[in-house]
Amino acid sequence: MSTGIAALDALNAAPLEEACARLDGLYEHSPWIVRAALARRPFATPAALICACADVVDQAPLEAQLALIRAHPELAGKAMVAGTLTAESTGEQSRAGLTHCSPEEFAALQRLNAAYNARFGWPFILAVRGPRGTGLTRAEIIATFERRLHAHPDDEWRECLRQIHRIAEIRLHDKLGWEPTAGHAVWDRLAALARHSEDAGQLTVTYLSEAHRACAAEIAAWMRDAGCDAVEIDAVGNVVGRYAAAQPHARWLLTGSHYDTVRNAGPHDGRLGIAVPLAAVRALHARGERLPFGIEIIAFAEEEGQRYPATFLGSAAVAGAFDPAWLALTDADGVPMADAMRGAGLPGTMDAIAACERDPSRYLGFVEVHIEQGPVLAAANRPLGIVTGINGSVRWLGEYTGVACHAGTTPMTQRRDAAAGAAELVLAVERLARAHPGTVGTVGILDVPSGSINVVPGRCRFSLDLRAPTDAARDALAQVALSEAHAIAEQRGLTLTLRETLRAAAAPSAPAWQARWERAVAAMGVPLHHLPSGAGHDAMMLHRILPQAMLFVRGENGGISHNPLESTTSDDIDLAVQAFARLLRDLAAETV
Amino acid sequence: MSTGIAALDALNAAPLEEACARLDGLYEHSPWIVRAALARRPFATPAALICACADVVDQAPLEAQLALIRAHPELAGKAMVAGTLTAESTGEQSRAGLTHCSPEEFAALQRLNAAYNARFGWPFILAVRGPRGTGLTRAEIIATFERRLHAHPDDEWRECLRQIHRIAEIRLHDKLGWEPTAGHAVWDRLAALARHSEDAGQLTVTYLSEAHRACAAEIAAWMRDAGCDAVEIDAVGNVVGRYAAAQPHARWLLTGSHYDTVRNAGPHDGRLGIAVPLAAVRALHARGERLPFGIEIIAFAEEEGQRYPATFLGSAAVAGAFDPAWLALTDADGVPMADAMRGAGLPGTMDAIAACERDPSRYLGFVEVHIEQGPVLAAANRPLGIVTGINGSVRWLGEYTGVACHAGTTPMTQRRDAAAGAAELVLAVERLARAHPGTVGTVGILDVPSGSINVVPGRCRFSLDLRAPTDAARDALAQVALSEAHAIAEQRGLTLTLRETLRAAAAPSAPAWQARWERAVAAMGVPLHHLPSGAGHDAMMLHRILPQAMLFVRGENGGISHNPLESTTSDDIDLAVQAFARLLRDLAAETV
Repeated sequence: MSTGIAALDALNAAPLEEACARLDGLYEHSPWIVRAALARRPFATPAALICACADVVDQAPLEAQLALIRAHPELAGKAMVAGTLTAESTGEQSRAGLTHCSPEEFAALQRLNAAYNARFGWPFILAVRGPRGTGLTRAEIIATFERRLHAHPDDEWRECLRQIHRIAEIRLHDKLGWEPTAGHAVWDRLAALARHSEDAGQLTVTYLSEAHRACAAEIAAWMRDAGCDAVEIDAVGNVVGRYAAAQPHARWLLTGSHYDTVRNAGPHDGRLGIAVPLAAVRALHARGERLPFGIEIIAFAEEEGQRYPATFLGSAAVAGAFDPAWLALTDADGVPMADAMRGAGLPGTMDAIAACERDPSRYLGFVEVHIEQGPVLAAANRPLGIVTGINGSVRWLGEYTGVACHAGTTPMTQRRDAAAGAAELVLAVERLARAHPGTVGTVGILDVPSGSINVVPGRCRFSLDLRAPTDAARDALAQVALSEAHAIAEQRGLTLTLRETLRAAAAPSAPAWQARWERAVAAMGVPLHHLPSGAGHDAMMLHRILPQAMLFVRGENGGISHNPLESTTSDDIDLAVQAFARLLRDLAAETV
Repeated sequence: MSTGIAALDALNAAPLEEACARLDGLYEHSPWIVRAALARRPFATPAALICACADVVDQAPLEAQLALIRAHPELAGKAMVAGTLTAESTGEQSRAGLTHCSPEEFAALQRLNAAYNARFGWPFILAVRGPRGTGLTRAEIIATFERRLHAHPDDEWRECLRQIHRIAEIRLHDKLGWEPTAGHAVWDRLAALARHSEDAGQLTVTYLSEAHRACAAEIAAWMRDAGCDAVEIDAVGNVVGRYAAAQPHARWLLTGSHYDTVRNAGPHDGRLGIAVPLAAVRALHARGERLPFGIEIIAFAEEEGQRYPATFLGSAAVAGAFDPAWLALTDADGVPMADAMRGAGLPGTMDAIAACERDPSRYLGFVEVHIEQGPVLAAANRPLGIVTGINGSVRWLGEYTGVACHAGTTPMTQRRDAAAGAAELVLAVERLARAHPGTVGTVGILDVPSGSINVVPGRCRFSLDLRAPTDAARDALAQVALSEAHAIAEQRGLTLTLRETLRAAAAPSAPAWQARWERAVAAMGVPLHHLPSGAGHDAMMLHRILPQAMLFVRGENGGISHNPLESTTSDDIDLAVQAFARLLRDLAAETV
């Protein structure tokens, strides 16, 4: 982690002109960005400098942003062929193998360049070194190009700027001789773990499958390798590694996340929250360092609810919230959960599962690192985010019923159009959720059953999903939304049926623990970015017994989630490892 | 038609108190209605008196309307059991067999009475003598009761008033000794024709099926029986009956409608427009009367487009608009149309079909009688409606594309929700169509493909159907609607695709022919009610070669269409026969 620190220190100390010269070419033909950003020296990390540059660009007029985008060459374009690329671009395009395209690949790239430019009016920009810094293949580049060609111009504008900052980050590391060693190591471990899958060609690891058990064994080996004193697989399949404190009988810091996946998943969802703390423990162990508290890392066996109609099986057991009825649930093949457990060599009894429950008095608290699974940090150009809490949620399935009638012969004034009622509700939900920062409201299912082009809809089915940072905010939003839903029915003469299908309590971060994350992130020189978690996490379950707080790591590709494109960069991972280590150090100082 | 004319004349001439006494009990415990309506004497027909009464009720305060509704007894309720019904109600409930319910039927009616009263706060009202005046079965009564129990209170309020006027109409006929002889005859003929069906237990007659050919044969027999001089089945299966003029070489009045049906149809759609003119011809023939023009009645073989993906086959042939490509279209079993024609004993050649085209110079014009297939006349309490034209229409299938993303983690400000875009369009279409009287706009298909409760919709499919009285009005509406659809896409960052699937020209009624219908209806003493036709009709095809105008007959059950409940009453049919006869007489006077 420390190879480039001296260079960064020198940069911080250098006169402005010299610093500008050292960073020449960081942003393609656009030295004004670095020059302005350097006013915010000193930078604790390269990421801090890139954040400052991103802020400069964000505050620049749109014309300047467009000029920056247009300063970039096309991939394998005329400038490459003519040899007029900047030194940096030449290296990047050549390292990505773009100078050795097959005629077909070259033709494809020319076609894509033309189509992209025609659609957006600027060149396609992609950090061809990729999230691991090792380079995308030409096939990956072409696939990304194809995908982004269909994006909305506003989104693509933002994505180009994100790629420009990513390119600058990689160039900066080259200039500084900086290597995110720990980040690369985590990235490589997660890539290796993703070998285990139920489905060929994509990543799927559901509860207690063969791939799942292989993952557990591999994670247990990591834990031992990192220096954990004790490693075990518990009765629900959680892999638990403990790194003891300096003194016996000291309390523990609990951390971790899940290792199961959705179908066709990305490699970092959940698993990042296992590997990041392990990297910090490995560093402690390498230095022979013990803290005033023990570190217990749990790789939770199940969070995604893919195999059985229940979620958070692993963290529920630890929180003492495992419902005995779950053991009788069956999967798609009719296998009861208890049988699946026994098949995996676990006891499959409630007694054994109940024994997983932790005694809160033995623990300081719970922290979880997780990929954001959303677009917020990417849009804000921040590598890490402070989670203020996990939103509470409530869901309904509903239906408006009116009168199906002839679309030609029924005057507008004599209709009871169920779809028009649902349309009003969709817009009301959007308006209400927009009015309350941090809340979201979604109608994800919308369907006129057997709808016909010439029949006024007599029925319209819909779903409603509301989430808010606190239970009170969620309930207030729900009350207004439902009251609008009923008012729409009343006013339009429709019948409304609603069935609540889920109600989950909010899990606000414990202020003291959120503050610890804030100090750790601030120590990286990275501006704090607070956000709620709209998705559920294991921390929600641990919230029942312990104070908790989460750290989010920025997602690439617009924060796409539950998708093979879901990824973080090894640079952002490295920063998360450093932040985790910093949290441990500060906590040690507090605890002593 | 004339049995009660003397009694009506007497009523028109009687002093007010005597007239009120004669009509005592017409409206249950509510003599104020008749008293006020009698101010509009003389009445040309019983229907004119009922229209006047309906206007009195419509103009009364809502409290008075509710009191009228509440003045009615429950069906098989306490008053019937206690023997305290009015004489009229006693006769009606007993004739409907309600005094001889089985214990199960009686229990069902008590349960329905209680549920209905709890829901609406007034008693269920139904003219148990039914549309033919001969009485509904107890099973039909219970089925109607069950159905209406689920209606909206506003709609049910209107339906109760409609039933009250229908009950009054039947009571009036009893008092006058009035018998709608021609209406009953048409009703009975259509009931007999509905024996022929492809599906057991429901009415389905598609092009050239066995049932279709049986219908053609039966209609040909009606035509001969009514006194047509020449009857033939032409090359597309149209049944053509001609009643010659007084002089050879005179021109012809063309009339008719279609005899094919949708699946599970009502018995009056299309066929009413064959049987009503035939009833008028039958009366002429019975009197040995010839007019200065011939009458050509065509039972069109196909209008509904059920068997082949083409519509108006019969009238298209007559209008010279039969597309030769249609002969190669195949039905669901792969049978080409030409083969189906030959199988039905028709030539199946384009030459033969082309020969069906009429020479417009030989015709005065085209008139068509049709059931409304909408709720307008029922809501307005008018038995007949003057059609101002057949609306032009245009249809699209469309899709908004945004970005599917996590409903929990994507802030409201970073969404591209395709369903929210479609919702805006649904409401925009509603607003635009409402702003232009006579136009309608419908989104009948609305669907988020594979929508999920926790995913922001990335796609939303929809249909758009716009109709307006003139092509110019349709195009103006279409332009605004499409421009809003694109503006929504622009504003929300969505992609919009639209595919036009249909564009049909408007067919405004020829003013001179519309005026003839107006005079004929006015002669019945019935207030004129003008309305556009939102549905397509054979007259749309004939519009290409002849001036045309249509007469609508009120539909029962809220104007429900393409449904076994679709029906007119024999009283309204009788009025249509009288109006048709009147149109013939006036036209004869003009033509001489």
